[in-house]
Amino acid sequence: MKAFYGDLRLGILGGGQLGRMLIQQAINYNVTVKVLDPDREAPCRKLCDEFVVGSLSDYETVYNFGKKVDLLTIEIEKVNVDALEQLEREGVLVYPQPRVIRLIQDKGLQKQFFKENDIPTAEFQIISSPAELKNASIPFPYIQKLRRDGYDGKGVYKVVDESSLAKAFTEPSLIERWVDFEKEIAVIVARNESGEIKTFPMVEMEFNPEANLVEFLIAPSTLPHTVQQEAEEVAKNIASKLKIVGLLAVEMFLDKHGRILVNELAPRPHNSGHQTIEGNVVSQFEQHLRAIFDQPLGETDCLNNAIMINLLGEAGHEGPAVYKGIEKALKCPGVYIHLYGKALTKPFRKMGHVTIVDSDREKAIEKARYVQEILKVVS
Amino acid sequence: MKAFYGDLRLGILGGGQLGRMLIQQAINYNVTVKVLDPDREAPCRKLCDEFVVGSLSDYETVYNFGKKVDLLTIEIEKVNVDALEQLEREGVLVYPQPRVIRLIQDKGLQKQFFKENDIPTAEFQIISSPAELKNASIPFPYIQKLRRDGYDGKGVYKVVDESSLAKAFTEPSLIERWVDFEKEIAVIVARNESGEIKTFPMVEMEFNPEANLVEFLIAPSTLPHTVQQEAEEVAKNIASKLKIVGLLAVEMFLDKHGRILVNELAPRPHNSGHQTIEGNVVSQFEQHLRAIFDQPLGETDCLNNAIMINLLGEAGHEGPAVYKGIEKALKCPGVYIHLYGKALTKPFRKMGHVTIVDSDREKAIEKARYVQEILKVVS
Repeated sequence: MKAFYGDLRLGILGGGQLGRMLIQQAINYNVTVKVLDPDREAPCRKLCDEFVVGSLSDYETVYNFGKKVDLLTIEIEKVNVDALEQLEREGVLVYPQPRVIRLIQDKGLQKQFFKENDIPTAEFQIISSPAELKNASIPFPYIQKLRRDGYDGKGVYKVVDESSLAKAFTEPSLIERWVDFEKEIAVIVARNESGEIKTFPMVEMEFNPEANLVEFLIAPSTLPHTVQQEAEEVAKNIASKLKIVGLLAVEMFLDKHGRILVNELAPRPHNSGHQTIEGNVVSQFEQHLRAIFDQPLGETDCLNNAIMINLLGEAGHEGPAVYKGIEKALKCPGVYIHLYGKALTKPFRKMGHVTIVDSDREKAIEKARYVQEILKVVS
Repeated sequence: MKAFYGDLRLGILGGGQLGRMLIQQAINYNVTVKVLDPDREAPCRKLCDEFVVGSLSDYETVYNFGKKVDLLTIEIEKVNVDALEQLEREGVLVYPQPRVIRLIQDKGLQKQFFKENDIPTAEFQIISSPAELKNASIPFPYIQKLRRDGYDGKGVYKVVDESSLAKAFTEPSLIERWVDFEKEIAVIVARNESGEIKTFPMVEMEFNPEANLVEFLIAPSTLPHTVQQEAEEVAKNIASKLKIVGLLAVEMFLDKHGRILVNELAPRPHNSGHQTIEGNVVSQFEQHLRAIFDQPLGETDCLNNAIMINLLGEAGHEGPAVYKGIEKALKCPGVYIHLYGKALTKPFRKMGHVTIVDSDREKAIEKARYVQEILKVVS
């Protein structure tokens, strides 16, 4: 592939913040970037050589977009895979591969893949109908997840007892034994076409229970080295079994017994890797580019303690975004603000993120809590 | 000023690599960016909200461009200052201030400013005519510099003896006592509107004598702490006397007697600060944005040893650029490639730069030499 030689046309399906940060990094490599997104106000709209407004799930739209590029990648997995498979047959490079996206789009297939490949995951059952749900073999409480199109906490429902069943999803789903976890952890792994595989050091996450979003992420982890090693091995194993080209984010639970259970996969740059921009030798975005360009993967060591906070739209505010507290936040050393260029805020919308870096872990946490307190997106 | 609040229109005069890297950083701050450059193929052309093709020295062009923005900055100092002064009078924020650009555009005024403010600099004489040059009071050898429009080694001539005078410039110039220097050093300093001033740690430079361009830059310096401190004080002093808002690059000589002599100023991001992108807490581009947005300046500490190499067009090659050795370079840990998106290469054209980071200084230098050897821009 002739990356870097000026003529490579990279297509990105999705024009959100992940695409935006990917472009920010791709600027270093002289790539011609085209972006497809249904929202004409998407964060990438002004940063690419060509911005196409169109549906990511429409076969014709995705196919026609893909025909104009040499290499196609994604920043969201809800895309028309039939079109991608056709493009692949016609010689367009599609990374991650359409078969990987197809598998990951369907949480049922994902779970079956885990089972078939001895990848540790919570016990589950595929549910095709409300009748099946009634006779489920997994005891209460359990989690019901839509097989398709769930994201950021949507499409997930906790079934506590018989009475919760009335509100359960009726679409194809899976149910999963409730994991009383100690920690949510994640490992981002990259694999290039030549088969080289590298993981980023494991990170620990803290969720905002109200928004059900990653809100606070800490790297490197201080959990026992054996846990980190195991998590990284699990991630490498999945990347290797999938033969994915590109990044794979592996979200996991560490349960109260110290067991690692894989929760979900994302075949692309991920919210749990934003702190790598300032915190690691190479960022997840650089690594994704290297992987899909079939270049040597970069070193992933942590340079420092880095904490990532999602900057979410404040509850009760909807409309043109106003950012409060930027000046105060920038006064703290080691605070890096990333705004996503979204004109409108709404409750819990990801409007940006902040990375806080400090050689002293406790200080980093303290600063992060301070920044979280003062920095607000209102309308 | 309402930076970050979505509506700030930032204008950049010049669309080259400095503007490109400034935009790359400005992406984090939701700024609307407009760029003016005479070259329709300039590196910034695809990365801004509006790219205007036009002359930077034409009053009307610069004025009309400036009327469409809230805040105007530069990435090259050869711009029409009359237009900037008019814009300033009409309420457009222009940083650096037109009076600072006017002073720095003229090497004669620069030198007089140094003299009037007790800033150490090589002895000089302003030359208005060839006759004055013949009767110069500075002994051979000396350096003749055009007062205006010299850059990257152009507009500079070494007068060795009487016989060199035949080829001397006839335009307004200055002559400067030859400095038999030990090292070329540079300090980048930033000042925001509130008057906060911060320097980046001093860097050492190595020039390519053939191209007369910075080719190899090392940070942090290992020169005695007192030298570094003095150089940083000199830079702060100049920024303070100029009351500049924005970045100021101060290039200096360290002579054989350990004296610091200021050579030249640049009121903008500078080639001698590219290594700050990966090597320092904040980069020069982030710092310039903070300064002109009147935000708190960032910490500038070096995170590591960082070496910057300019990626120059290979001698004897002119035409569409081909980058050789990228894959080999990316195999080295801590190597960061920045290509500038220029389609055509020519001898010694700045096509990109590479930063090499390593906690071991000797290893960093070794890697830098290796990268310099294998990475070539040919046609």
